[in-house]
Amino acid sequence: MSSKKTVPYRINLPEELIPKQWYNIRADMKELPDPMLNPGTMKPITSPDELAPIFCYELAKQELDNETRYIDIPEEILNFYKMCRPSPLIRAYCLEKKLGTPAKIYYKFEGNNTSGSHKLNSAIAQAYYAKAQGITHLTTETGAGQWGTALSMACAYLGIDLTVYMVKGSYMQKPFRKSVINTFGANIIPSPSDTTNAGRAILAEMPDTTGSLGCAISEAVEKAVTSENCRYVLGSVLNQVLLHQSIIGLESKAAMEMYDEYPDIIIGCAGGGSNLGGLIAPFMKDKLDGVKNPYFIAVEPASCPSLTRGKYAYDFCDTGKVTPLAKMYTLGCGFIPAANHAGGLRYHGMSPVISKLYHDGYIDEARSYVQTDVFEAAVEFSRAEGILPAPESSHAIRAAIDEALKCKETGEEKTILFGLTGTGYFDMTAYESFHNKTMIDYVPTDAELEEAFSKLPEIK
Amino acid sequence: MSSKKTVPYRINLPEELIPKQWYNIRADMKELPDPMLNPGTMKPITSPDELAPIFCYELAKQELDNETRYIDIPEEILNFYKMCRPSPLIRAYCLEKKLGTPAKIYYKFEGNNTSGSHKLNSAIAQAYYAKAQGITHLTTETGAGQWGTALSMACAYLGIDLTVYMVKGSYMQKPFRKSVINTFGANIIPSPSDTTNAGRAILAEMPDTTGSLGCAISEAVEKAVTSENCRYVLGSVLNQVLLHQSIIGLESKAAMEMYDEYPDIIIGCAGGGSNLGGLIAPFMKDKLDGVKNPYFIAVEPASCPSLTRGKYAYDFCDTGKVTPLAKMYTLGCGFIPAANHAGGLRYHGMSPVISKLYHDGYIDEARSYVQTDVFEAAVEFSRAEGILPAPESSHAIRAAIDEALKCKETGEEKTILFGLTGTGYFDMTAYESFHNKTMIDYVPTDAELEEAFSKLPEIK
Repeated sequence: MSSKKTVPYRINLPEELIPKQWYNIRADMKELPDPMLNPGTMKPITSPDELAPIFCYELAKQELDNETRYIDIPEEILNFYKMCRPSPLIRAYCLEKKLGTPAKIYYKFEGNNTSGSHKLNSAIAQAYYAKAQGITHLTTETGAGQWGTALSMACAYLGIDLTVYMVKGSYMQKPFRKSVINTFGANIIPSPSDTTNAGRAILAEMPDTTGSLGCAISEAVEKAVTSENCRYVLGSVLNQVLLHQSIIGLESKAAMEMYDEYPDIIIGCAGGGSNLGGLIAPFMKDKLDGVKNPYFIAVEPASCPSLTRGKYAYDFCDTGKVTPLAKMYTLGCGFIPAANHAGGLRYHGMSPVISKLYHDGYIDEARSYVQTDVFEAAVEFSRAEGILPAPESSHAIRAAIDEALKCKETGEEKTILFGLTGTGYFDMTAYESFHNKTMIDYVPTDAELEEAFSKLPEIK
Repeated sequence: MSSKKTVPYRINLPEELIPKQWYNIRADMKELPDPMLNPGTMKPITSPDELAPIFCYELAKQELDNETRYIDIPEEILNFYKMCRPSPLIRAYCLEKKLGTPAKIYYKFEGNNTSGSHKLNSAIAQAYYAKAQGITHLTTETGAGQWGTALSMACAYLGIDLTVYMVKGSYMQKPFRKSVINTFGANIIPSPSDTTNAGRAILAEMPDTTGSLGCAISEAVEKAVTSENCRYVLGSVLNQVLLHQSIIGLESKAAMEMYDEYPDIIIGCAGGGSNLGGLIAPFMKDKLDGVKNPYFIAVEPASCPSLTRGKYAYDFCDTGKVTPLAKMYTLGCGFIPAANHAGGLRYHGMSPVISKLYHDGYIDEARSYVQTDVFEAAVEFSRAEGILPAPESSHAIRAAIDEALKCKETGEEKTILFGLTGTGYFDMTAYESFHNKTMIDYVPTDAELEEAFSKLPEIK
């Protein structure tokens, strides 16, 4: 007879167990990601001062800090976390039953806040450090709108002005995102726009483009460096963001430990990589330390397959080529993915940390799915678990269901953990097109990718 | 020095403390509400058999049961509750700080589920009893869309067909509610519609009407009694619904007791009365028992002021006059309130239990607010607490803020508890009109109300 405690449907860590430090995976990596390059000199960036025109100083330091394993979370951020955290770790009893699988499925649900996603974890941190430095205005980009909403909440809380460039395709699909962001007092502009040189250049070349994250980043960065007392903040990709998002994994691990559980498989959707990086961080530490060996799966859309079909190379983080370069899996910064309903996963590149871990074999697998397969999983999940997932998160659901069905075939009682990054309340246009069967499964051709790769910068 | 434990931002009861019984306030009332009348005979309904064509038998029994104080929650319902409950009781530290009030503000947040409100508590119960009786199809009405969504989730979970009549005004304001309800596999029809005699009659008289809850109820009831193996379910007003919603108050009380807290003031928004009735139930017991004396405030929109300006009289529960009659505060079943953004509070009547408690002075106060005052509170709350509230819930927020500001004046450290019934993610049209200053504050004239009262049925 097992002495294990019965696992409740929802594990809510007590407030006092909210982690008080973030975990920096770089401190434990066997090999570090290659350094960022200064776009002017094409030389490695070694000092926070080089990043200071774009980022506030403390965040620039975090970006380059490859050594400090645990970084204290300032008290004001901790207090904000207490408003919306700990997020529940949910045992998917109902989904397991519906699938008839012997697998145990857990998901860390980050969607129970008004931003509707995990983005709030880094938004409050970035806004806090900016305010501490006396910055009064921030700019950013947003794809699906979750990051923009999260940042508007953080800025409203701290009293900072905010301008959000939202990828035009998403902006059109999700008109109500604008109202939410306005409710929190921020300004929102569809990108590409005529408010920046980068936006005007892209519009001149492609007047009908629905935009991309890379393009919105160019505009937000330009706006930040040309405005007074203003900095740019980014919701994913960066090392600092992965650091802040480590709270997802730390809480997940603590919650599982309370019930003597440990995941055999860990699954996250991957756009820029912040959720995946945050979710896996403490479990990856176990793997790097040789203590445990969980199997990591990164899931991306077939329409924007940076890990599964991209090149591991130096590239710009934005379309306008104003940002530093990073060594990462990329489809080429000129690649603008076809419009799809997972705006948060429409990014040409991938976090350098995630890229390195994947390249070196620590992330075991990357896989991609087409949209209709993803939405089929989303609907099945919603009817069983009563949560309407975001399209982005539903990529992880698809993979989790597939893994659970494999267990059904083999009879293995694996423990699966996936990240349910957010809710789909603002994605109903997407669900509607799935119900109407008008959803298109776009997959770029090899020729399209080769064309994009041919424009990758040459680095000596 | 106080020996009290520090109250966390969010009190999450452990799963094992989710109540296993609902509390039936009628068992403790000094005087019972007057009985429902059969619309055919105008005689009191005394047997569940009389309600059986409309409601399934177990729910009809609960409707008439004035004696059983505690009713066991069936295990399948408890399991569903565990997916989304306990809901957090939140200490509004950030709002208190922003207001500079010595008051302690708590709110029971029922919006952290995909239906976005407390409605799920009764939806799963009603769907469960219907299924247990072999019913395969349910019909209902929905105003703001929260009840319709909740019931579609419950029906998807249990595998029951569902047709939802949604008040046309809300249907137009909130196009995405349809997609959510479709995602859970239910059918949704804007009301009044040409699918029923009741709907056709109303359309003939008022072709441009935006509908009302009373009218949608008529259609849903007609559809139920004319379809095979079908029953009608209602999201508010009824005794059975207040019974199921008592879980809100029971959890709130248990959570406060963990920290030796007890509310001086309890505030709930009131449309049909289900949230208010559920929230106050166990605290009202204390008042009825003479153990405690909390001050209860019911808050309603000035555009639909049943408690503050209605008559306490027998009336039909629907516009089409097909339902039983109830003794309640009512504006007259022919009263169709002006379109406003709190669709869930646009009901001509009020729960007979709430009506009786208010009439007899146990609910201490009813007050009404105009829309812009409500949305001002909603925006202030969202920026402080990071939760975007539903327009309905924001009525309670308005009153809570006003009470907290009174405490600021007097210096009293009162403990305020209010019900935050839901989120406003599907109400962004409303927020948009507030931001644009196009929101209209409609208040019916005395003449309009007199006209509506003149059509109240005469009961001998």
